[in-house]
Amino acid sequence: MNRLSVEQTNTNTTEPGQAMYDMMAALYPLCRSITGDGVRHSLRLIGRAIPLTCHEVPTGTPVFDWTVPKEWNIRDAYVKNASGEKVIDFQQSNLHVLNYSAPVAARMSLAALKPHLFSLPDQPTCIPYRTSYYRETWGFCLAHNVLEQLEEGDYEVCIDSTLADGHLTYGELVLPGTSDETVLISTHCCHPSLCNDNLSGMVVSTYLAKALLAQSAEQPLRYTYRFLFIPGTIGSLTWLSLHEDEVTKIKHGLVVACVGDEGAFTYKKSRQGNAAIDRAVIHTLAQRQQPYQVLDFSPFGYDERQYCSPGFNLPVGSLTRTPHGRFAEYHTSDDNLAFVTPAALGESLATYLAVIALLEQNERYLNCNPKGEPQLGRRGLYSAFGGKKDTKASEMAMLWVLNYADGDHTLLDIAEKSGYSFALIAEVAHTLVAHGLLVRKENGSKENAVHEL
Amino acid sequence: MNRLSVEQTNTNTTEPGQAMYDMMAALYPLCRSITGDGVRHSLRLIGRAIPLTCHEVPTGTPVFDWTVPKEWNIRDAYVKNASGEKVIDFQQSNLHVLNYSAPVAARMSLAALKPHLFSLPDQPTCIPYRTSYYRETWGFCLAHNVLEQLEEGDYEVCIDSTLADGHLTYGELVLPGTSDETVLISTHCCHPSLCNDNLSGMVVSTYLAKALLAQSAEQPLRYTYRFLFIPGTIGSLTWLSLHEDEVTKIKHGLVVACVGDEGAFTYKKSRQGNAAIDRAVIHTLAQRQQPYQVLDFSPFGYDERQYCSPGFNLPVGSLTRTPHGRFAEYHTSDDNLAFVTPAALGESLATYLAVIALLEQNERYLNCNPKGEPQLGRRGLYSAFGGKKDTKASEMAMLWVLNYADGDHTLLDIAEKSGYSFALIAEVAHTLVAHGLLVRKENGSKENAVHEL
Amino acid sequence: MNRLSVEQTNTNTTEPGQAMYDMMAALYPLCRSITGDGVRHSLRLIGRAIPLTCHEVPTGTPVFDWTVPKEWNIRDAYVKNASGEKVIDFQQSNLHVLNYSAPVAARMSLAALKPHLFSLPDQPTCIPYRTSYYRETWGFCLAHNVLEQLEEGDYEVCIDSTLADGHLTYGELVLPGTSDETVLISTHCCHPSLCNDNLSGMVVSTYLAKALLAQSAEQPLRYTYRFLFIPGTIGSLTWLSLHEDEVTKIKHGLVVACVGDEGAFTYKKSRQGNAAIDRAVIHTLAQRQQPYQVLDFSPFGYDERQYCSPGFNLPVGSLTRTPHGRFAEYHTSDDNLAFVTPAALGESLATYLAVIALLEQNERYLNCNPKGEPQLGRRGLYSAFGGKKDTKASEMAMLWVLNYADGDHTLLDIAEKSGYSFALIAEVAHTLVAHGLLVRKENGSKENAVHEL
Repeated sequence: MNRLSVEQTNTNTTEPGQAMYDMMAALYPLCRSITGDGVRHSLRLIGRAIPLTCHEVPTGTPVFDWTVPKEWNIRDAYVKNASGEKVIDFQQSNLHVLNYSAPVAARMSLAALKPHLFSLPDQPTCIPYRTSYYRETWGFCLAHNVLEQLEEGDYEVCIDSTLADGHLTYGELVLPGTSDETVLISTHCCHPSLCNDNLSGMVVSTYLAKALLAQSAEQPLRYTYRFLFIPGTIGSLTWLSLHEDEVTKIKHGLVVACVGDEGAFTYKKSRQGNAAIDRAVIHTLAQRQQPYQVLDFSPFGYDERQYCSPGFNLPVGSLTRTPHGRFAEYHTSDDNLAFVTPAALGESLATYLAVIALLEQNERYLNCNPKGEPQLGRRGLYSAFGGKKDTKASEMAMLWVLNYADGDHTLLDIAEKSGYSFALIAEVAHTLVAHGLLVRKENGSKENAVHEL
Repeated sequence: MNRLSVEQTNTNTTEPGQAMYDMMAALYPLCRSITGDGVRHSLRLIGRAIPLTCHEVPTGTPVFDWTVPKEWNIRDAYVKNASGEKVIDFQQSNLHVLNYSAPVAARMSLAALKPHLFSLPDQPTCIPYRTSYYRETWGFCLAHNVLEQLEEGDYEVCIDSTLADGHLTYGELVLPGTSDETVLISTHCCHPSLCNDNLSGMVVSTYLAKALLAQSAEQPLRYTYRFLFIPGTIGSLTWLSLHEDEVTKIKHGLVVACVGDEGAFTYKKSRQGNAAIDRAVIHTLAQRQQPYQVLDFSPFGYDERQYCSPGFNLPVGSLTRTPHGRFAEYHTSDDNLAFVTPAALGESLATYLAVIALLEQNERYLNCNPKGEPQLGRRGLYSAFGGKKDTKASEMAMLWVLNYADGDHTLLDIAEKSGYSFALIAEVAHTLVAHGLLVRKENGSKENAVHEL
Repeated sequence: MNRLSVEQTNTNTTEPGQAMYDMMAALYPLCRSITGDGVRHSLRLIGRAIPLTCHEVPTGTPVFDWTVPKEWNIRDAYVKNASGEKVIDFQQSNLHVLNYSAPVAARMSLAALKPHLFSLPDQPTCIPYRTSYYRETWGFCLAHNVLEQLEEGDYEVCIDSTLADGHLTYGELVLPGTSDETVLISTHCCHPSLCNDNLSGMVVSTYLAKALLAQSAEQPLRYTYRFLFIPGTIGSLTWLSLHEDEVTKIKHGLVVACVGDEGAFTYKKSRQGNAAIDRAVIHTLAQRQQPYQVLDFSPFGYDERQYCSPGFNLPVGSLTRTPHGRFAEYHTSDDNLAFVTPAALGESLATYLAVIALLEQNERYLNCNPKGEPQLGRRGLYSAFGGKKDTKASEMAMLWVLNYADGDHTLLDIAEKSGYSFALIAEVAHTLVAHGLLVRKENGSKENAVHEL
């Protein structure tokens, strides 16, 4: 049986870590935005690893209080000084252009140019990442050191972009399970050359899908998995708006972002606050015996803002490493390939897989002998000799499972109550099932009909 | 719009503080008790500041397990020594007489007198305050130093008081609001020359009523406010007994006492323990960023004992500064005009006003776009440029309000969840209403009918 | 009135402590097991102190997932060395035989003997206690020091035991109360010469029954008390299996074990976790003002495992001193008469009695004057002179009882809320009843019919 393992220590994280890093390196140069060919190109690359479907939603489509915007594409952009030298050059870094800049071709004084320049005085060597999606303007981002050296004089400004009717593009992969109850894995794919936020989310989501595809080829998964690669905010709004009938099937969800740095894991809870996904992630992080933090839901961050809006209130949390805005490299040119590591990506993937393994196995069971304990000894499940001071963890765990397999408690409930790992609790539950002492609680199942109290 | 401000920093507390102090100085010399002309005189003074109604309830009126007692009045009292010198003199301090003393005119030895003398050996310079309302006797209170210097010999004892059928007097002011749901403000007015307990409560209640009268003249208040100036215990019992049909309208209430000293605020919760009034006061105190303490309900203290008796169990707490019995001056002649300050009175008034402002504005709202976030940017409510690390508090607060404006959460709920002040949360809620993004949840309102989900 | 006292300080614990210790000394030499004459003999000794009924359940009787085993009896056992000297001798200590050993008579080498020998390398002077109830084998237990001195050579091995169809024996005493709602007191009586585990439980249960018998002779008890003296695990399973219809009457229960050592009390909660018995024991321990610990339920330990199995989930906890497995003497020959003390036994009995007194008196009451406070002063229940800083504990406790005597709160609820001892709360409740201010809430009672709201 190829059951998903919740034992992360068994997982080789080096190999997929390097593969994810390599994929990230390929995606890094592309100039993504919330629409346009940069996203399409990125999704095509991902589509080589997993069978992704790309959807195109026309400009002007109303999505709740919003409208799908014009499509933005850019070929080149620069600022030349009076000597004709490019002092800002899009070809050097796509962060140099204020994302979604309208086209411009003009000569102007430094004074006229300056309101269109964005820099970070506190991080003078970094190019900031700035956007202006919903207010048509143009601009350049540059290192503050460079800005300060610009001399008075005339500048030639060129942004060779288009803002025109087109489409919003997103990628989707649905992996059907034995149930249509769905786990949503959502990641934003709209940031240009920024690694942790959020190429890391894109590659970890890709390899997570790849791993689940492989597993489901051997044995069907319990849940349906829906992977979304979407532009931030407008993408999740668009998907929600077009799939209101699918929304209620989402039983658990995670927003994947900032999973490539070496920082400790951070879990931001769903708005529900004590959903199964919240408890599953927290248990998984606690079992790693490494530092981690848990944050209550707040209505800012990534697309959990939309999934957890009051009209949906889905059980969707966000598992990151260092969260958005809390690392110095955030939204700057320093969030580059040197900032993320294959090892961190590998660990992140393994942790997501462990969470999913837990969700897959987190069922309710019924003790077939609920009155008193069953006689474990004659089944070889308990030490033959009595009187000893200590009992093996597996025997203890068995007693916990038997005592709480009352149809109300899930295996995660039992793991939390007993202090044993979900992995051990699930393992002994399977042993007890094999010995006919436990049955999975399942509506309409034949075996259940016999045993249920 | 003259909406009540929950921003206490905006409130000028010096001016009303001095006015309250001056009123207290005028009330200080009067010999109040649970009945009699001292109370009547005091209520007349208060009636010059606010349109107070005085009620007279006849002696003998049954009030639950009690009976309205005889009315007590006193003109003079003294003890003269053998030389004819007054060694105790009511004219020096009305605390010298055991409150509610029956009349007496006699000569007696020191030994016969002593059982009628009350002093505080641990505070030898203070005159204690003692009462004997329901057991007819007589006595004098004096400084222990003075008691110890009394020489053997004959004493002339005179208490020129009357205990006779009459009335219990209390003052009441009802300020109608748009709803008959009522906020009760109750203060005891039965203590003689004692400033913190409870002339402070009487003057702060008076100026609170004055402020709400002024505000309601400009814009009707949401709640009806009922101010009671009553003798302790028997007064609240009497009012409750005569107004059982009004009791259920009381949605919030505070007992005002000990609000003139410089000590930190103390809030004693209602018996319900998590009533809106409890949370409103605690939030208000926390926002002051000064030390304060919160106590659980206990069945002793002031008139909250009666309001929170099991047959009523009203949401009535008590907001004091140093609570009863916890300051050395408590119930002694040291609780005088030097012990209280205009500044403390002013701060107390401002804090009560802030609590009331919170109650007035603490409503439920509905997000008109509950699915996903509304597009704040195009309404000028959100920064046009994206990508920055930090977001303004007002923008954050707006997101919190939108996310939790689900008809279940009050603004106070949202303030507590978000960690922002109620003031900011209420302010952005009003902004969002003005932009058509939010509607107040109100049964039967027309706008609500359109928007409610 | 001979109401049970919850004031443990009033209890003379020395006298019954010594009597319990003497009974323990008489029981100590007997070789008990889960069946057989050792148990019968022990129950006969107990039957001299209390009117115990002995039940015999035949071998082969199915009890849930188990079967009543063959009866085991033993006359003698030894191991002789080549010189014919007894190197292990059952007559020296009945712990020397692996409990439930099948008969054996053989000569064998040391190498062949060794797999049948059990010792404790870390406690080389102790004989361990080991059992093999459900797997037919034989063995000897001995001090590790002795084991290490055994020389090579032939040994004569003899266990003169029988394993044959017979009975499982248990003792029972039912003490009827005014209600058939039952308090279960269960203790295991299957351990051979081990004092704390569990001769201590047997003698404390015996004297607890003796005390309740005496009390019920004077005044009927509220609850029915059922005392069980049973072999561990199989005994409780057998009783539960034969009395399923009685099980629902059990409203509170305690498993008595390890109550003779000088360690602090340990209370292990029932599976329900917040049952009345849990709160009653914890309150009683807290009032002792000695260290104690409270443990959450876990599905190992003593017979609470069976009473709290999911098919029964009874409110049964376990009150011990140092719990099983946590003292070095546990399940060794050092758990002897020197390890337990009369004083500890006496204190344990007093504590159990205090818990039972609390259960007996822990009723709901109704304030006959729920609106406002009743006038305690005119009934002589409250100080006549007002104004003092402090109030007597008994007056405070009265106010607490009156405020919470709303038919919902038990006296224990009020004790927990107020911080006063249950003893004081119960005492003032009885005073208030005597003054007609309070009535016990009781369905169908005549006095209640008059007063109930």
